[in-house]
Amino acid sequence: MSDAATDLAPAPVKIGFLIYPMVTALDALGPAQILSAVPGAQMHYIWKEKAPVASDSGYTINPTHDFDDCPQLDVICVPGGFGQVDIMNDEAVLGFLRTQGQDAKYVTAVCTGSLLLGAAGLLDGYEASCHWAWHEQLALVGATPKQGRVVRDRNRMTGGGVTAGIDFGLTLAAELAGEDVAKLLQLSFEYDPQPPFVGGHPTKADPATLELSRAFMADGVASMAEAAKQAQANKDKARAAAE
Amino acid sequence: MSDAATDLAPAPVKIGFLIYPMVTALDALGPAQILSAVPGAQMHYIWKEKAPVASDSGYTINPTHDFDDCPQLDVICVPGGFGQVDIMNDEAVLGFLRTQGQDAKYVTAVCTGSLLLGAAGLLDGYEASCHWAWHEQLALVGATPKQGRVVRDRNRMTGGGVTAGIDFGLTLAAELAGEDVAKLLQLSFEYDPQPPFVGGHPTKADPATLELSRAFMADGVASMAEAAKQAQANKDKARAAAE
Repeated sequence: MSDAATDLAPAPVKIGFLIYPMVTALDALGPAQILSAVPGAQMHYIWKEKAPVASDSGYTINPTHDFDDCPQLDVICVPGGFGQVDIMNDEAVLGFLRTQGQDAKYVTAVCTGSLLLGAAGLLDGYEASCHWAWHEQLALVGATPKQGRVVRDRNRMTGGGVTAGIDFGLTLAAELAGEDVAKLLQLSFEYDPQPPFVGGHPTKADPATLELSRAFMADGVASMAEAAKQAQANKDKARAAAE
Repeated sequence: MSDAATDLAPAPVKIGFLIYPMVTALDALGPAQILSAVPGAQMHYIWKEKAPVASDSGYTINPTHDFDDCPQLDVICVPGGFGQVDIMNDEAVLGFLRTQGQDAKYVTAVCTGSLLLGAAGLLDGYEASCHWAWHEQLALVGATPKQGRVVRDRNRMTGGGVTAGIDFGLTLAAELAGEDVAKLLQLSFEYDPQPPFVGGHPTKADPATLELSRAFMADGVASMAEAAKQAQANKDKARAAAE
């Protein structure tokens, strides 16, 4: 942007988002908007191949990197989405995350993305958050479910559902570049939210809306539970084989 | 998603976002995430041609429609961004918006996008909002600046800066599909914001952060003012020629 940003620039920081078919776009692109403005940010949008990837919002985006040419990242972030069920037991994806997770400074997720981190074994013994409707499934993949819009445990940082990615992005920006920069970004992106309705969380929603929302997501919740159990079984099997 | 969504489905609603080089991605993709979940939504991402368009966040997205094959939309939405300066006086873009604006049910914008609507003559005599740093420039293009996270004047609906697009999207979802659906979406996207810092609006920010943010955007604000004045001069000239 302006020279003011350059004046603040610290060392380069490699930030990467996994982008897969039917990802919930905002899970990734909300925090990516914030984090791409962190001085020194080098953004990576990663999938198996560089062909356009369909988001859940009716457009495709083009990965900048594939699993082979993606460098070691400082920050790896896994967004959620209905398409995630199909990769919960995909060894190519899990292997990529495990490799990155070994040396990344921050291993992160938004929404149900934390379940994929768990499937890769990256949340074993860590506290984590998740979209409210899938939150308890964290226990299925070795994580300790903890309520929170943004939950941090050592170098793991995980956000709640979808729009929590904005809060997550600003919180991580403060870690990466300091609180002054994060406050600058919060003001520059005019993050002064005024939700038009009460009820953005089950603790605040009226019963009818909650019931409707559960029905809206029921299939996705059920299929993710199955995939999570399978992923954990595979982890247990690999661990037993290694012993 | 699930059958519950289908049960609520009204008639199809054609929703389109203008996507241009160096668009502020979240301006568009935040509300697009919300609106794409409105039952009956048919999403359109539109630019002059269908080649990949670079966002400001380090990735490209692929337009689904160009100016020639985009149907008449029910909702046209213009996002903001630093790249907008370059199209404030682009007759192909302004002509497309004018044509769509004539019959669209809702003519909308997020962030500085309202200045482009104004350049196209679509806010003459209308109240509108804009990103706080560009807000007063609305007067340069014939609109009446009005403070507000989401401002509605007849069938015009405009949002404040960047993250205001989420509030805008939910407000518009309520218009399109009713308040019950909008509340369902607010809960399903877990929109229960918890900004990590105070100060997402100039009225709440500390002086040092405000000064830094103004410096951060100074070049963009100055160049947009020039472009807006030129656009208004062109409108005046066209009007005089028509008389």
